[in-house]
Amino acid sequence: MITSLQNAQVKNIIKLNQKAKERREQGLFAAEGRKMFLEAPSGWIHKVYVSESLESDQELMERVRRFPWEAVTDTVFRQMSDTQTPQGILTVLHTPSYQSEELLKGPDPLVIVLEDLQDPGNVGTILRTGEGAGVSGVFLTKTCVDITNPKVIRATMGSAYRMPFVYVEDVPSLKSLLRKNGIRTFAAHLQGKKAYYEESYQGGTAFLIGNEGKGLTEQAASAADSLIRIPMCGQVESLNAAMAAGILMYEGMRQRRTGR
Amino acid sequence: MITSLQNAQVKNIIKLNQKAKERREQGLFAAEGRKMFLEAPSGWIHKVYVSESLESDQELMERVRRFPWEAVTDTVFRQMSDTQTPQGILTVLHTPSYQSEELLKGPDPLVIVLEDLQDPGNVGTILRTGEGAGVSGVFLTKTCVDITNPKVIRATMGSAYRMPFVYVEDVPSLKSLLRKNGIRTFAAHLQGKKAYYEESYQGGTAFLIGNEGKGLTEQAASAADSLIRIPMCGQVESLNAAMAAGILMYEGMRQRRTGR
Repeated sequence: MITSLQNAQVKNIIKLNQKAKERREQGLFAAEGRKMFLEAPSGWIHKVYVSESLESDQELMERVRRFPWEAVTDTVFRQMSDTQTPQGILTVLHTPSYQSEELLKGPDPLVIVLEDLQDPGNVGTILRTGEGAGVSGVFLTKTCVDITNPKVIRATMGSAYRMPFVYVEDVPSLKSLLRKNGIRTFAAHLQGKKAYYEESYQGGTAFLIGNEGKGLTEQAASAADSLIRIPMCGQVESLNAAMAAGILMYEGMRQRRTGR
Repeated sequence: MITSLQNAQVKNIIKLNQKAKERREQGLFAAEGRKMFLEAPSGWIHKVYVSESLESDQELMERVRRFPWEAVTDTVFRQMSDTQTPQGILTVLHTPSYQSEELLKGPDPLVIVLEDLQDPGNVGTILRTGEGAGVSGVFLTKTCVDITNPKVIRATMGSAYRMPFVYVEDVPSLKSLLRKNGIRTFAAHLQGKKAYYEESYQGGTAFLIGNEGKGLTEQAASAADSLIRIPMCGQVESLNAAMAAGILMYEGMRQRRTGR
């Protein structure tokens, strides 16, 4: 049992929680909680840490013991944890690496492209909602928040394990790949001429979502095939970025399922 | 200029930020930030507090001086503030009081009913998205988070000033009012038989959204005219409550604008 905050593994997990650079260099990230352990792909699991008070949970421990694991005192666990109310289980996983082609497989892919999104909760919610809507992958510009940030991982509710993602230099550099795969790019934009429900998303479709405060850059908007607008009543100036993405992705699903 | 943390007004604002009971008894709530001051209905403003470093902002101060106001030191302001990075302006407002009939005015109202929602960010986001989607009002069961909670107010981005809301005992007790006004109630429910896009929301419509973890109570679900399902691909078990509400409200707008 690890009892000291000075333990090298404990120190390393704190680093993995806090620093994108550490996660990138080590190729590892941490995911907290029972659900995130139970849904983790076995092949990704590097090591599991369990707090001493969780060790009495026979059912959970039976599964934990299939992997390299270690117990830590409750005090140490609270330090390793990135949450207010830790559940007593933390999984360290290998960061997956996807090829762009994997995100575009199958007929008429539906993908999402995020430019410079900064809020971890938004990116996590987009992955979760995207899996629900049948999105086949997420492209992120390298200026976006790191997808293995613990707050992103938590907000995905497990979708981080199942939604393929690829970081790209910027939106224009992604455009030729999308075009080559017959995918039309629709940018959510306040200046869009058509309302989002006036376009068809039944063919290959990419939805392009911009930064929370600034929206899309001009270069990204001009790389899109069409600017679409989510109409807003009242005095609302914009929707939350994850909400806008969710409304578009589910309109994509609706059209594909109803055929209109 | 208020310089002391012991000042009675400062202590009271901290209470208003922290305690729903205080807000209810005093009929006041606090809203932080420049946008929340600029969009506040003049008649609601009780008093404005400005940090000393914001006093040099001539344009803003010209407007502040139309109301009862007071400067506080930056140190005091940080204590009064509920945010990590305070903008230096906090408005104390009278809590509005609406009649149910105001939420149902006009032909074919579109309203939202929240049962036992606990996350302030979700309730705030639902108000913001609801204003955007043309919702005419929000009913909340009394077990929901207080709508004048500072985290709710912040997440509304100003919609708290414009979206009428009424607290109700529970969902069944609201049902006769909705029925009397020709409003059909659609409950977002995992056991819904029809997908949400298979129902028509062109007549008077209420969308019913349940608690984040537990969903709707049985009594609420059985009070609904129809259970609808948001289809989910992959292994997604549920969507975020605000996301589910947003998808439904915007489907309501889409149908009303396209006529199908």
